[in-house]
Amino acid sequence: MSIKLIQGGVCAPAGFTAGGVRCGLAKKPGKKDLALIYSETLCTAAASYTTNKVKAAPVLLTQAHLRDGKAQAIFCNSGNANACVPGGEEAASRMCFMAGKLLDLNPEDIIVASTGVIGQPLNIPLIESAMPKLGQALTGEAEGSKAASSAIMTTDLMEKEIAVSFELDGKTCSLGGIAKGSGMIHPNMATMLAFLTTDAAISSPMLKAALDFVIPSTFNMVSVDGDTSTNDMCAIMANGLAGNSQIITHGPDFDAFAAALARVLIYLARLMARDGEGATKLLECTVTGASSDATARILAKAVIGSNLVKCAMFGKDANWGRIICALGYSGADFDPGQVKISLASEAGTVVVCQNGTGLNFSEELALKVLEPEEIGIQIEVGQGEGGAVAWGCDFSYDYVKINGDYRS
Amino acid sequence: MSIKLIQGGVCAPAGFTAGGVRCGLAKKPGKKDLALIYSETLCTAAASYTTNKVKAAPVLLTQAHLRDGKAQAIFCNSGNANACVPGGEEAASRMCFMAGKLLDLNPEDIIVASTGVIGQPLNIPLIESAMPKLGQALTGEAEGSKAASSAIMTTDLMEKEIAVSFELDGKTCSLGGIAKGSGMIHPNMATMLAFLTTDAAISSPMLKAALDFVIPSTFNMVSVDGDTSTNDMCAIMANGLAGNSQIITHGPDFDAFAAALARVLIYLARLMARDGEGATKLLECTVTGASSDATARILAKAVIGSNLVKCAMFGKDANWGRIICALGYSGADFDPGQVKISLASEAGTVVVCQNGTGLNFSEELALKVLEPEEIGIQIEVGQGEGGAVAWGCDFSYDYVKINGDYRS
Repeated sequence: MSIKLIQGGVCAPAGFTAGGVRCGLAKKPGKKDLALIYSETLCTAAASYTTNKVKAAPVLLTQAHLRDGKAQAIFCNSGNANACVPGGEEAASRMCFMAGKLLDLNPEDIIVASTGVIGQPLNIPLIESAMPKLGQALTGEAEGSKAASSAIMTTDLMEKEIAVSFELDGKTCSLGGIAKGSGMIHPNMATMLAFLTTDAAISSPMLKAALDFVIPSTFNMVSVDGDTSTNDMCAIMANGLAGNSQIITHGPDFDAFAAALARVLIYLARLMARDGEGATKLLECTVTGASSDATARILAKAVIGSNLVKCAMFGKDANWGRIICALGYSGADFDPGQVKISLASEAGTVVVCQNGTGLNFSEELALKVLEPEEIGIQIEVGQGEGGAVAWGCDFSYDYVKINGDYRS
Repeated sequence: MSIKLIQGGVCAPAGFTAGGVRCGLAKKPGKKDLALIYSETLCTAAASYTTNKVKAAPVLLTQAHLRDGKAQAIFCNSGNANACVPGGEEAASRMCFMAGKLLDLNPEDIIVASTGVIGQPLNIPLIESAMPKLGQALTGEAEGSKAASSAIMTTDLMEKEIAVSFELDGKTCSLGGIAKGSGMIHPNMATMLAFLTTDAAISSPMLKAALDFVIPSTFNMVSVDGDTSTNDMCAIMANGLAGNSQIITHGPDFDAFAAALARVLIYLARLMARDGEGATKLLECTVTGASSDATARILAKAVIGSNLVKCAMFGKDANWGRIICALGYSGADFDPGQVKISLASEAGTVVVCQNGTGLNFSEELALKVLEPEEIGIQIEVGQGEGGAVAWGCDFSYDYVKINGDYRS
């Protein structure tokens, strides 16, 4: 079974069109701020949501709309989170109504999402005036996905988009995705904004099962700043146009679908970490030898989430003491005396700690290893077979700058 | 019952002397790096320790030494944490042996602590050569406490010292303390380094009970960066020279002692927050109306610990959406629709959110309120009688700078 990278993002799967335009919600001049993804036929659909107790209105409305496991379009604005604001529910409903009218759909078949500043009323007339333009922008070509991925960005610096093809039941299926990340990203949640499309035929419960299976080891292993947003959502629509016999149970077809989904989510997770606010480096922390995968995840996330580790990586400082310190306060069970820590990159590998104590490593080599943009932090805890990978980024002056005056 | 601020720090209580000298462990030229606190009589003693699974050798040794509830001196070095390093236990033992020899004490009556870089061997000969000088530096005058508080600093910018007097059983008692904070400070732990002296007579179990009672609402409510160190410790020695009848049970005398202890720890906690690495502001988050004190503590700590809130305060940005967002991911139970948030300082108060939604407040007033160095974040959750206060600091470029090249 092979999974191939293909072009087209969310427009790669058959029957999907997408587009993005500017209505004026985003403050940055010229920035697109409305994205639409549409399937020509009704889809099975599923989503994971933020675990934040404070949930934005569009999150709550999408939960209601997906209760029947069906959707046909995703409508998302950036520039405003539509969270913690009077009339938020009505505004989210209005968005679904407008998209439904544009696409001739039942508003309950719309997945709606918002991202941006919390606590400011959403300017519905601005959105309304841009709807005709958004309808015209819909296209099945690759630029439709690009425009949509651009429109959901906030402080992101790069578009996050991928598509893969894979075989199910002798048919070639496609799975595409776009995502936005950057700030307020932490593993204690469902995920950040990610919208996925596929032409595979799969029932709603199995679609949800696939998300629930893949997200814990992918999107939930990304941390940028420890803050879990009110608006996070990962939604997927499957229109079945690939013609495979519908996946309705666990089995080889489900496994193949989940593998393709994992490939897409890992790709997007890494991009979100690399494009963390102010980041200069992607950090990938791999824990092996833990007593269980769950323990390995706790350890890897503690390292990736440590502000002090993040600052050290920004400064190219092999300060592994902060890494073992983060393992120590993670709450996970392990024996500090068994820990081995290595730092790795395309420039080489340096073992900095063994049996829980520091090695007399070459600082010159360490500096060389920490120079590139992708740094691996490899931790072996010598207790069992459990493993995990977490992704994050370093902490730079720019993170503070970006977040010191986000609203202005 | 009144508690009065007095001069003298840890030398204020009768029978205590202290001193600090430089042996050369700290890299900064001229920086003192050895501190000693001594009581002329054997003390009852107690301590709280880091909850980090990785505990430095001096923490483990002090735990052993305090098993009998007795101590007569505290010996601490800065510049090196003596953690995660081969021979660490032996080095900590050597420190106790040297201090015991200098003071003619059983090494087991020494509380030993280290703070600084993790994973580098402690240079024992350097310490040994400075012991005579350290002995000569011991004094009961205020400068002894100042020298000791200066010697335990790492990236701290200011000395942290306080003393109070209070009455017990008709006798005037004193309680003094010094502390170091700055980085690796987070509430999920016993505490940071703090050394306390008192001439009150109180049994070891009640001394420990007083620490356990006061620390959860004081030192455990301080967060600088979310990282819990391997070396944190708060130790207290009581020599009983004030002549009160020894506190051996709960009751009014215990309450009076605990009140004095709380006064000292709150003062030191606020100083540690204000002097957080790179901080330009002290943040004090007050939660009222929670269903319990425990819930209030979780909520207050989540706000103080949010990187995004910290960046907003640095930027004087009344971005209250990040505050309610932090409440939401705290894990505590509350009704977002009941939340009221105000920002306050000596320049005024501005209510920014009521009933969970944003108010149309004056940005001009908000900017004025966020100008001073001490900012209050006041949260009313409208559910019950539970309350808590947490202290933290803003997040500045300098935090990243300080921690990007801490070892070099």
